[in-house]
Amino acid sequence: MIETQPAKRPSPPNYDIVIVGAGPVGLMLSTCLARWGYTIKHIDNRAEPTPTGRADGIQPRSLELLRNMGLKSAIMAHKPARVYEVAFWDPPKNGDGIVRTGTWASCPSFIDARYPFTTLLHQGLIERVFIGDLAKSGNKVQRPWTITGFKTDEKANPEYPVEVQLKHTDGTFEETVHAKYLFSGEGARSFVRDQLKIGIKHKDPISNVWGVMDGVVKTDFPDIKMKCTIHSEHGSIMVIPREDNMVRLYIQIASSTDPDFHPRKTATEAEVQATAKKILQPYSIEWERVEWYSVYPIGQGISERYTLDQRVFLGGDACHTHSPKAGQGMNTAFLDALNLAWKIHAVEAGFADRELLKTYEPERKEVAENFSSRRGRRPDTVQAASEQKPALQTGGADDDNDFIRTFKESCEFTSGYGVAYSPNSLNWSPDHAARSPLIHPKGTNLRTGRLMINADVTRVVDANVVHLEQEIPLNGAFRLYVFGGHPVRNRQALADFAAHLAKPDSFFGSHLRSDMDQVSHHDSLNPHSRFFSICTVLAARRSEIEISRDVPGLLARYRDLVYADDLWSRRVPDARAAAHAKLGLDEDKGGIVVVRPDGYVGVVVSLVEGAGTVLALNEYFAAFTANKKLGSSESRSQL
Amino acid sequence: MIETQPAKRPSPPNYDIVIVGAGPVGLMLSTCLARWGYTIKHIDNRAEPTPTGRADGIQPRSLELLRNMGLKSAIMAHKPARVYEVAFWDPPKNGDGIVRTGTWASCPSFIDARYPFTTLLHQGLIERVFIGDLAKSGNKVQRPWTITGFKTDEKANPEYPVEVQLKHTDGTFEETVHAKYLFSGEGARSFVRDQLKIGIKHKDPISNVWGVMDGVVKTDFPDIKMKCTIHSEHGSIMVIPREDNMVRLYIQIASSTDPDFHPRKTATEAEVQATAKKILQPYSIEWERVEWYSVYPIGQGISERYTLDQRVFLGGDACHTHSPKAGQGMNTAFLDALNLAWKIHAVEAGFADRELLKTYEPERKEVAENFSSRRGRRPDTVQAASEQKPALQTGGADDDNDFIRTFKESCEFTSGYGVAYSPNSLNWSPDHAARSPLIHPKGTNLRTGRLMINADVTRVVDANVVHLEQEIPLNGAFRLYVFGGHPVRNRQALADFAAHLAKPDSFFGSHLRSDMDQVSHHDSLNPHSRFFSICTVLAARRSEIEISRDVPGLLARYRDLVYADDLWSRRVPDARAAAHAKLGLDEDKGGIVVVRPDGYVGVVVSLVEGAGTVLALNEYFAAFTANKKLGSSESRSQL
Repeated sequence: MIETQPAKRPSPPNYDIVIVGAGPVGLMLSTCLARWGYTIKHIDNRAEPTPTGRADGIQPRSLELLRNMGLKSAIMAHKPARVYEVAFWDPPKNGDGIVRTGTWASCPSFIDARYPFTTLLHQGLIERVFIGDLAKSGNKVQRPWTITGFKTDEKANPEYPVEVQLKHTDGTFEETVHAKYLFSGEGARSFVRDQLKIGIKHKDPISNVWGVMDGVVKTDFPDIKMKCTIHSEHGSIMVIPREDNMVRLYIQIASSTDPDFHPRKTATEAEVQATAKKILQPYSIEWERVEWYSVYPIGQGISERYTLDQRVFLGGDACHTHSPKAGQGMNTAFLDALNLAWKIHAVEAGFADRELLKTYEPERKEVAENFSSRRGRRPDTVQAASEQKPALQTGGADDDNDFIRTFKESCEFTSGYGVAYSPNSLNWSPDHAARSPLIHPKGTNLRTGRLMINADVTRVVDANVVHLEQEIPLNGAFRLYVFGGHPVRNRQALADFAAHLAKPDSFFGSHLRSDMDQVSHHDSLNPHSRFFSICTVLAARRSEIEISRDVPGLLARYRDLVYADDLWSRRVPDARAAAHAKLGLDEDKGGIVVVRPDGYVGVVVSLVEGAGTVLALNEYFAAFTANKKLGSSESRSQL
Repeated sequence: MIETQPAKRPSPPNYDIVIVGAGPVGLMLSTCLARWGYTIKHIDNRAEPTPTGRADGIQPRSLELLRNMGLKSAIMAHKPARVYEVAFWDPPKNGDGIVRTGTWASCPSFIDARYPFTTLLHQGLIERVFIGDLAKSGNKVQRPWTITGFKTDEKANPEYPVEVQLKHTDGTFEETVHAKYLFSGEGARSFVRDQLKIGIKHKDPISNVWGVMDGVVKTDFPDIKMKCTIHSEHGSIMVIPREDNMVRLYIQIASSTDPDFHPRKTATEAEVQATAKKILQPYSIEWERVEWYSVYPIGQGISERYTLDQRVFLGGDACHTHSPKAGQGMNTAFLDALNLAWKIHAVEAGFADRELLKTYEPERKEVAENFSSRRGRRPDTVQAASEQKPALQTGGADDDNDFIRTFKESCEFTSGYGVAYSPNSLNWSPDHAARSPLIHPKGTNLRTGRLMINADVTRVVDANVVHLEQEIPLNGAFRLYVFGGHPVRNRQALADFAAHLAKPDSFFGSHLRSDMDQVSHHDSLNPHSRFFSICTVLAARRSEIEISRDVPGLLARYRDLVYADDLWSRRVPDARAAAHAKLGLDEDKGGIVVVRPDGYVGVVVSLVEGAGTVLALNEYFAAFTANKKLGSSESRSQL
């Protein structure tokens, strides 16, 4: 038969999300959503991942996050440099050259970090770790492709309302797709942001031109393997150690405070090396090899909006640009993506109201703004704090000293532990709709909107010593930490909690898996619900715990997530149950800690006999879940 | 031109070593020697690495060794199971079935192990990690090839005296090669051992037939993720957890004490499962999948010789067979290979007398014999020790209790920390040729022939917190740990030590690299000599140490290996300098610790002003180095 009619044009393919840009923010979002089963169209306009240079500092907190995703070992396999301390070099009081005026831990011991150092590895290797992980679920980045247009029409296509036009960068191919979401991780020059006419607010009026050079050097400068901030009469340098004996130097070429400043001002590699040699005097430096050299103007700015319609989102450098030497770009990008990823999952999987997506912009924008305002202050703060070392080292007594408080906050911020999301439906506060008096028991050291506190515990089934906060991988689920207190004295409270949790109208029982009967008995993470994983921690020695006797039914199903709180901690040396004590929970009576899927504490509730504990949690979850009528009637357990 | 004469037969190729067998012992030897630049012909008669099953327990000490080789992360990437505790199950006093009668740490805290657990991963994955490492130096295992003959003739070919015939297992190809050494890592049925007519001595008269089954099970037995020894009236089982939710069960099928014993006795998979079900009652067990099943007779035996001529060597199972459930085979194999590798290197590189090779057999054979005799005793010992838990947990006070001492030794042995090489030229004792009174200063906790004691220190150049004992990778060099004591009060002693070390007739100065002038300034491990790497540890805070001022010339060349002993240790909580204190060295005066290339302490010498320290070390090294006239004349430094 002869074809006489034109072929029917196929309808555009549908995706859950189109992600533009495969830098840290795009890859983190892609990796999370791919793992949780979403369909993704991910494009990048570069032919391959970053070959050299670019951002490279992984903060202590980000390394914990990467570990939680199972990606840390692939990062560490590259033998990155680790920065434990920062050294400050300045002109001497008398004479020429530079002298070390102080050193400071990059993540001081008052921060309870598992990895108290910054990890330095070039961005391309980090990107490849994510790309390798995406490949495991059959996802890949389509390169070199770019976005040429998009529009959202909820009425015409309520399920996939975003239409996106894409094309190969050489113009040979074009594609139109429909999606539930569009995400711009395009970097500072975002086509999507421009199309949405979202402006950038430059908070810091000072902009700078920086030269950055990665290479292998020969030098007698003693701190070449440290992170250093060097000020001299010839200018300023920041030194950052790298993998493979490399070092990165940031050299300030010009500042908008200079009389002849121009943002396009530039300098050759040789000029920058000559400047570096002058600044480092009396020490010598020669380059054996330069791997990468670039000059760029930097003004710190924050996008006025991160989304207009909760369908098209921005993240990473598309929303906020930082000084590259602050080492914040990638870490902030990771957290933008993480914050958005689980919220998209919660909404699309039917757990949360679509309203939840409105929390993305305020949570992440506030962090960027805090950081931006902090940067201006930091150098002075550090110097001031440096002079107050003894006070800092002795700990909390001097917290009312302004300098020290500011310095501590600054350290928390740059290590990634300073993120504090403000009260909203997720981060409980006295203004939250949940008003049960059991919420936020006296004594708890946990702060809502802040990271869960680290603790070592012993896993009961195999006696492994583990990091409790890492036991639930990044699976998109809320984490219920049931601190059970004393297994005998608190037996009734624990049993009541499990019984009320199991009721079909509890926050938990109303979000069960439809395929619950087919779940493998090896799955201890999400046997009942994709939205919850449950850890139970008992204040007893491992050998005294018998799961079949001490952990009530529903909780015992998570038998691989049952722990003995029986390890000594230097931070609470006299505690009988160190994990309970670190978190500020009663060692006999325990408590329930709800941690958001991204690791931040949502709410803490006392563990009491009767229905109260679950009712309090019902109130909390009702504030943002799709089912607002939790626990409204008496009902029997279905589990 | 027409070729009328037969082609001249090419002379056989020369190799430093021919290694037969690519199990753990052959691969460890191959990997070490390949890294140190030796040429290797490595064959194995299997077409590919072990696909499933076989040995799989990596002891705590072996994991440290693998880390020292940079291979630990590749092992851990497979997410092996970790055994922290062993549970004992027995028939109850009254009634049927089994009950837990005790649990015990597999590496109790009285052992100062970095990784206090046994790592369980199937042998094939471990082999592949080594094979991957060999590929980096262009080495690969030739498969499936076998050995058909060999002879040694030192007169005919003094340089490559061993001639070896090899052939493809299908008989299609043959090869003859010449080598300096031949190594049999062929396993229990060693062709080389048979050819040499070396007998096996069966120390333990009891032989057994074991069934071993790897698989995924569904069970309510609570300790299925633990290592368990289960005795019941229906028989005995050992449970070993594995990666990927698998479990290994060892089931005793027959013992030579049975009236109807036959070493060829066998049992089907179904029979063994039926037996396991009976033994585990009242708990149930079902197999979802069986990955591997095998039955084998085991008699423990030790080869009478490990070498006859220091040219042809045996190692691993070719020398000693153990009960597989002891989990010793692979670990002992690793240490055989390591022991031999560095000695071959020391001899071939011109550092040591050929006599050194004679220490391989006695050192390794004694370990195998100790283990063999220990095995028979262990079960009783464990039970006895179990009843004495409180005494054990309080520590050393009860060391004169025989049970406890035996139990502690047993734990040290099975964790890999019990290896204690007897006095010889390498392991100093009062009978050693070195008689300086500075040797083995009072107070030291180090024991010659034993592993170096672990310690955390801060690396000065980059402030990284590191494991001191891991700072020198397995590079075939002796490790000189210069504990410098107080940098001001001990300044002269440290300067004198460096000055005398630099003399051309010192043990150090007489073994310099011929290419010393071409060494990259980035090489801090072997800048002067391939036979020595030097760490300097000062009893001061990192911020107080200035390498250019506090570390004298020669030692400062190893600037990446200079450390501050400024970290708190729970094992010596009151010490000012914890590493000095843990090793039992004076915190002001320090001391020199010489560690063999395989990690065992050779000698400890006081650090004093003047020439004495280096002279004492000259005496020690003269006992086995090729240059026996060390330090005989006054001479000026050449470094």
